[in-house]
Order: sequence, then structure tokens, then C-alpha cells
Amino acid sequence: MSDKYNYKYVKNALGRMVPREIDGRKLKPYKGAFETKGGIRKYGPVGSKSLPGDNKMLKSLKEAIKATSLKSGMTISFHHHLRNGDGVVNMVVDAIAQMGIKDITLAPTALFPVHEPLIKHIKKGVVTNIQGSMNGPVGEFISYGGLPTTAILRTHGGRVRAIEDGDLHIDVAFIAAPCADDYGNANGVYGPSACGPLAYSDADAMYADKVVVVTDYMVPYPCVPYSIPSTHVDYVVKVPSIGDPEKIVSGTTRITRSPTRLLIAQYAAKFIIDSGYFKDGFSFQTGAGGISLAITKFLGEEMERRGIKARFINGGITKFAVDLFRSGLTEVLYDGQVFDTHSIESFRDDLHHVETPMTMYANIHSKGCLVNRQDIGFLGATEVDVDFNVNVNTHSDGLLLHGIGGHTDVAAGAGLCMIVIPSYRKRLPIIRDRVTTVTTPGETIDVIVTERGIAINPMRKDLVRRFKRSALPIKPIEQLKEEVEKITGIPEPPKLKDRIVALIEYRDGTIIDVVREVKR
Amino acid sequence: MSDKYNYKYVKNALGRMVPREIDGRKLKPYKGAFETKGGIRKYGPVGSKSLPGDNKMLKSLKEAIKATSLKSGMTISFHHHLRNGDGVVNMVVDAIAQMGIKDITLAPTALFPVHEPLIKHIKKGVVTNIQGSMNGPVGEFISYGGLPTTAILRTHGGRVRAIEDGDLHIDVAFIAAPCADDYGNANGVYGPSACGPLAYSDADAMYADKVVVVTDYMVPYPCVPYSIPSTHVDYVVKVPSIGDPEKIVSGTTRITRSPTRLLIAQYAAKFIIDSGYFKDGFSFQTGAGGISLAITKFLGEEMERRGIKARFINGGITKFAVDLFRSGLTEVLYDGQVFDTHSIESFRDDLHHVETPMTMYANIHSKGCLVNRQDIGFLGATEVDVDFNVNVNTHSDGLLLHGIGGHTDVAAGAGLCMIVIPSYRKRLPIIRDRVTTVTTPGETIDVIVTERGIAINPMRKDLVRRFKRSALPIKPIEQLKEEVEKITGIPEPPKLKDRIVALIEYRDGTIIDVVREVKR
Repeated sequence: MSDKYNYKYVKNALGRMVPREIDGRKLKPYKGAFETKGGIRKYGPVGSKSLPGDNKMLKSLKEAIKATSLKSGMTISFHHHLRNGDGVVNMVVDAIAQMGIKDITLAPTALFPVHEPLIKHIKKGVVTNIQGSMNGPVGEFISYGGLPTTAILRTHGGRVRAIEDGDLHIDVAFIAAPCADDYGNANGVYGPSACGPLAYSDADAMYADKVVVVTDYMVPYPCVPYSIPSTHVDYVVKVPSIGDPEKIVSGTTRITRSPTRLLIAQYAAKFIIDSGYFKDGFSFQTGAGGISLAITKFLGEEMERRGIKARFINGGITKFAVDLFRSGLTEVLYDGQVFDTHSIESFRDDLHHVETPMTMYANIHSKGCLVNRQDIGFLGATEVDVDFNVNVNTHSDGLLLHGIGGHTDVAAGAGLCMIVIPSYRKRLPIIRDRVTTVTTPGETIDVIVTERGIAINPMRKDLVRRFKRSALPIKPIEQLKEEVEKITGIPEPPKLKDRIVALIEYRDGTIIDVVREVKR
Repeated sequence: MSDKYNYKYVKNALGRMVPREIDGRKLKPYKGAFETKGGIRKYGPVGSKSLPGDNKMLKSLKEAIKATSLKSGMTISFHHHLRNGDGVVNMVVDAIAQMGIKDITLAPTALFPVHEPLIKHIKKGVVTNIQGSMNGPVGEFISYGGLPTTAILRTHGGRVRAIEDGDLHIDVAFIAAPCADDYGNANGVYGPSACGPLAYSDADAMYADKVVVVTDYMVPYPCVPYSIPSTHVDYVVKVPSIGDPEKIVSGTTRITRSPTRLLIAQYAAKFIIDSGYFKDGFSFQTGAGGISLAITKFLGEEMERRGIKARFINGGITKFAVDLFRSGLTEVLYDGQVFDTHSIESFRDDLHHVETPMTMYANIHSKGCLVNRQDIGFLGATEVDVDFNVNVNTHSDGLLLHGIGGHTDVAAGAGLCMIVIPSYRKRLPIIRDRVTTVTTPGETIDVIVTERGIAINPMRKDLVRRFKRSALPIKPIEQLKEEVEKITGIPEPPKLKDRIVALIEYRDGTIIDVVREVKR
């Protein structure tokens, strides 16, 4: 394999060709889900000093940018707890652009449609690299070759690993804080832009050279509880607003009403209940997707019926998880992000609803993270393939439109990892011979549940055996694929150019796949 | 200055002669309370990896010691939340001795009389260095030259600084945990040996090469809340008992009944109330000493009378602080350690009674620690001198009998730092021309309060002016000293040998004084 970009390729453990080097960065091919050696010494962040009378309050973002000595060529980071309501990324990059700073690497945990204005900054050379998840327009822009360098996508656990291992050095972290004091202690539970935990920023605060807290709601020192401690914060800036509360969390999260999706949820719940994992003291991860919420609800009903309690739910927390918690059906809620106002209140007020720093959530180079102890996870996908590899990043047309989140992390950790998806979308089949992009390796996926049938990964002989006589519509994945293709036909492969526009990094830092430029 | 040990001396900023090097360790002389440069890159701890199915439970301490690859010449650490009830230090060192391991450096946060059995291990060469506070018999043993090397005493903030800056490398941290799960998440709030926070171990867990949690009370995974996260723990060992609950916390903490001490507390409270620092939203630090508790009580009464509320109390938390908290007289309790069962319950149950990791408490090389934001601190002493230098480590006979705790940290941080002490003890005057050992530099001490009068540091011209017409018995420190000496006489200087048995490290890592061997 060769092309005009002179990539030197190597085949990784999934048979995907990945470059040995790109943009001057040496790369390692993916070797298997659990092949990491570990033992890499953690990055030693730059120290500081702390004297009485130090003043961290600055009058404007520009003053803060100046104080951090941010220069062209540096890397800045953000969290995405404010999701599509975030005002801080655009605000900071606008200020940077106005100050004539260029060639910035953005390292957000994720970007959303609200961040579309970044495109103009990319076009003008203000932003020249992105390392982070991209949901929507910025990802699409990059798919068409808009970024002059190669983007890097990482999982939640992979990002914190990269920071701790020194692979991702952050010069300045800008932390949007719904509530803060003048010394930089910050939380996400008070103020007009309350969002719950600030867990995505934990490592940024700890490892960035300089840390700026940006808030629109200040409390007298000390801001307690704090997700971000003053010990990690250099400067605090108060701005009129950090975001649009309506788009940060929803007042309500809703279960799917689609009969197809409800059927998927019913199949998934039934599979879980029969799997052997559903017993007193079990644990599961849930998110805010419509199918995921429905499964949570069905599991809750069955737990009540059987008198079974969960030990913990790992989330993405919504009202549905909080309701289980409040009715005593789970003892602990582990919370990386919340999706509705109801959940913010629970997180704020309950000592057993705790924040999950990302290294605790999923860092494969920690000494023991949460996903490893999780019994069940149910996850989405844009595509799966007959090897059970999962794509969550690109669509079948090749466009990079979604981030990874904790997908790969949960798949690797959970005892039972289930993909819950409709068998086709917009007449495109979801089960493919080969996913357009591998995000999560098939060896970590146990079951794929669609409305048309359930496929068990043959590597899970125990599950295959267990469900041999099940009334559930269990079938080989190839058969499921053929049934769907009879309805949808086999779609054209995406029209791709040679150029690699993004790398998909596995949670251990190896390259699991690449994303190529899409032809217009 | 020279002697048979060939110390090469340098005079530090307080005029004390300190060696340039000892035991092969290069030393820096103290230059002033706030002269640290900072900017030292933090130590990068050794990394690990974390896979599903990892088992951390080991059957015995010896198995754990073996698993950590602990070898002769290495450094092990402990916390002192179990105080004089601790069973873990002796248990671990006994096991190490039995395994034939020698030449160990102990790095406890503090040792207590219960640790007297260490003396036999020092005599046999199992333990050859101690870096940590020593209360009682081990300190006395070292004073008489019992340790073959030079001990190092650090403040709470200084110890965490030393760990973070890489000055104190811990090979294996043994963390006594009142409650833990099989993955190493641990807290101090449940179980028979409950002690409250585990804040003294925070940095040990984060920076030690290997971390062993030793517990006598296990809960199903996940142990929530956790003070020590599983991400930092290599092994977990369950033992029958980690300590003697009766000696870990007291059922009750008692205010002094001594009329002298009550008078000191009254003077101190009056001084604080008149100082300008006593106003709505103020903050103070309190401990468990009899005078300190009385001051807290008096301040509480006055707060109630005037309708003044504190923003936070920084402690050493006791029932007295908790009572103020529960009656709404302070909004936040910051808690490094608790002293009674009443306070454990508050710490366990209240979201605004929060744990203070030591770097947050007092690390001068953090980006902003708690002591810097504290208005008032009242502290004890064994001696003070006319330059307001304070000794908390040695007695006037030169014996090293006490640790530093947060003394020096609070003095440096607090707006108003007050020493509250009887003017003499056992006919020994407390105010000296020159303290036997400088623990805390005079430039950070504002006021000395005794039952015979109050001396304001002349550097604090604002306070001198403010109290010019006060009814309080304010007098120059020299006058106070002479009045006391009229009663006690001037004691003989301690009989010391040339050998330096311990270094007193200032919170920034420089050497503020040395402790010499005492003649028998």
C-alpha cells in the first residue's frame, strides 16, 4: 500500500493499514485490546508556588491568555460538559485569533455543532490541529480535508492516558466552570450554567502548564464542594455567560417511543436478564440515548420484581438512573457527566452519587479503573461488522461525525458488552462486512442486538452455550447481515481519497484505524 | 564552626548554622519564609496498567511485601490518622524484619508512643532512617543518638511538597484503611477503626511506586466515598485489626479546665475579636488542644452574640467545630484529621465538611493552598524566643519529642498567627532568648499570648497600632520574658553533643535548623 502522501504503512492486529509516522509523530499499531505493557512513567507537570496574597482574578479572557504566555504553536484544552450549550471554546479561540496567535492545537474532550465557528479559525490558520472528539460540522469539515494536519481521536480513558503518559501535552487548559471562587476552586453544581461533574477536566487541570478557570458565577472562597481544586489553577476570569443553559442539560430526558427501538431495548433487557450477569450486586453502565434509557427502565422494573439490587450504575447519569438510585435499586451512582437537571440535584446532594475522574473511569494505565469492574454495558454504533468490530466515528459515507466517548473503554472493561442498534438507518444496513472505521475492536464486543435478531460473538462460547435454547431471536451475525441486506441492498463503498485526515487511537495509545478524506 | 563530623556549615537567614550536606544529601539553607522559587517540575510517578480480572487481594502482609518487591535500602511510608491506636506500622515493620529486609527508611507522616517497638528494629538495622514527625519515645531515642543516620522532620505541607518535587521518593506506601474494597478504594469513615479522612496518605498513594492498602473492614466494590482511589492501589490485604479504636479517636474532646489555660484562651479570643480579622465571612484554624478548643468555644459564643458567621474552619476537627458548623456559624469545614467520633459522623454525612488533601492544605509548591486563605490560626509551642521564632519539636533539654504538623504552614499562611502558651511549664520559662530549635520562623508569627501578657511582633505595625489603647495586657516580648524569668530563673542550656541527629526542613525544602544529640 502506498500513495502520494508517502505514508509508511504497517498492518495492525485487526488487519488495518496504519501509518508508522504522521506529522512527525511516531505511531504504534494496535496489537490487541489488552496488549499494553504499561509501566510508562507518568508525566511530571510543571510546578508552581503559592504564597498568601496571590491574586488569580483577571479582568478578561485576553488578559488571562496573555498571563499564560500562550504562543503560536501551543496546545489548549477544553471540556465538553456544557455540550451544545458551550460558549467558552468559541470565546477563547475568538480572543486568541484577535490577539494574532496562530497554529494552535485544540485538545477538547469533544466539540459540538455549536463550535462550527471554529471552521473559520481553521481556515485562517489560527487552529491547525485538533486532538479530541468532533460531533457534527467540524468533523464534517475535517472529513473533506479542511484541517492542514491529522486529527487524533481518543476515548475518554485514552485521552487521560495520553495526558498522564505525556503523549498529549497541554500548554493551557481553559476550564468552563459553572461555579468558582477567586482562587480557582470550581464545581459544576451551582449557577445558571450548572452541568454536574467537571470530570472531563480533571487531568487537564492536573497536567497542563497553565490553567484558567472561566466562570459566570462566583461564590466566596472556598467553593465547596470542588471538582477542580485551587491547587491546580493559575487564573480565574469571570465572563457574562459561559453558555446557554437550555442546551447544556435538558429539563427532561426521554425514552425512545419508536417501536423498533423499544423492541431492541426489550431484546437487550431480556438478554441481560438471562445472561447470568443480572444478579444481586451487579453493575451496569447507561447513557442518555433513547434505547439505553429504555433498557435502564426495563432492567429497573425487573430488579424491583425480583428484589435484585445493583451495587453501582456507571454513567452518563439521567433521571432514570437517579430514580433507580432513589428507590434503593442501586447503592452507588458513578458519574462522569449528567444529562438533565434532575440528575444535577442528585449529584449535588447525595454522597453516594459521586464524580468519576476520567482516570478512575477508564485509564488503562492506572492501577485499576472503574470500567474493569463493570458487569454490563450497552452501547450504540454507526456500523458493526461480521468480526464484531464497531464504528462509532464515521458514517458509511466516510464522514467523521461523532466522537468516541467511553465506548471503547466500556467495551474493554465490561463483563458483558452489548451493542444495541437498529439493523438499518435511512436504508443503510448497519451490519457490514467491514466497518468503514474501527473504533472498538470486535474482541471486546460480546453481543449485537437489533430489532431483527441478536448476534453473539462466537468468542464468547459461554454465552453461545447459555442462549442455545433461548426464545430470543439469536442468529449468526452473517445471517443477520444477509437478512438486512435483502431489505436495504448492499450500499456503495464510501468515496475516499488517499489522505489520512484523522487517526483513531485505541485506549492504550496505539493506532486502531485511520479516517480518510472524503471525495465531495 | 567545625566539629569531628566534618559538617560544612552555612549560616541560614535566621542565623542558624546548618550543614551544606549530610548523609550524602545536598542541603539548602533557609532563606526566608516566602523566598522559594517554585517552578520545580513535579515528580513523574511510575505508571501501571489496569485490565479486567486483575486481582489485588493478597492473603498476608508478607505476601504483599513480597509482591511489591520491597528490598533492603528502600523507603516505606505510613499515615498517622490512627494516631496512638495505630497497629499497622509495627505490623509491617515486624514482617519486614522477619523477612530479613534491612536498611529501611521510614517515611511516616508521624509516629506516636505506640510505635516504641520500632526502637528494637532501629537497633537491629532494620530501620536506619526516619523522615517524618516523631512524638515521644522514638524521638527521644533518636535524640540520644540512636539512629545511625540523620532524621528529617517536615511540616504537613513540606512533606507533600517533598513527595511531589521528588525529594522524598517512596518505594512502598502502606495505607491503613478503616474501610476498603478489593480493588483498593478506601475511606476512613466506616468500620471499627474509623478515623475520618485519610488525607495524610493522599500523596503517598499518588506518588509511591507501589501502594498497599491494609484494612480490617471490607465492603463490596465500590467503596464509596473513597479517600484513596483504586487507580493508585496495587494490593489490598485484610488483617484482623488495624488498630485500637479507643486510641484512634476519643469519644469526647475536652476543653481545658486549667484556670491559667482558660485565661490564655480568653486573652486570645479577645485579641482576635478586636484584631479586625473577626468579621462576617472570616476563617480560622483550630485543633484539639485544650486552649485551642476553649478559644473556638469563646469565638463561637461571640459569633452568635454578634450575628457573625465564618466562611470556613480549617482543622483538626472536633465536636466544637462541628457544633459551630451545625448551628450555621460556619459554612464549610475543611478537614485534615478528626479527633472524635462526633466529627467522623459529620465528615461522613455532610457535603460541606470536606477532606483536605495535604497539597490542598499547605503545599507551597502548589498553585494555591488553603492556609494562604485563612484569616486566623492559633497554635501551640514548646518555646518561643524574642525574635518570635517558635520551637515545637524539642524541649528546653534538647529532646526531640514532637512533630511539626501544620504549624509552620499555618503560620506562613494565616493573616493573624497567634501562639497560645502558658508562660512557663514545670518551672521552665517558655520565652527564651533563642529557642533550642527553630521550627517556625518569627517573621510568620504575629502574636504570642500567655496568661501573663501578650506580645505583638513589632513587624506587625498595624496590630501594634491597633492595640495601642487596648485593655489587654500587651507588652514587649522582652518585658514578658523578664517577668517570667523572675519566677522561673534562667534555665541551664541543654547539654548537647556536636552530632546532628535530625534536620528541621522548612516547608519549601530548605533547612531551618538542626537537632543535636543530647548528652545523657
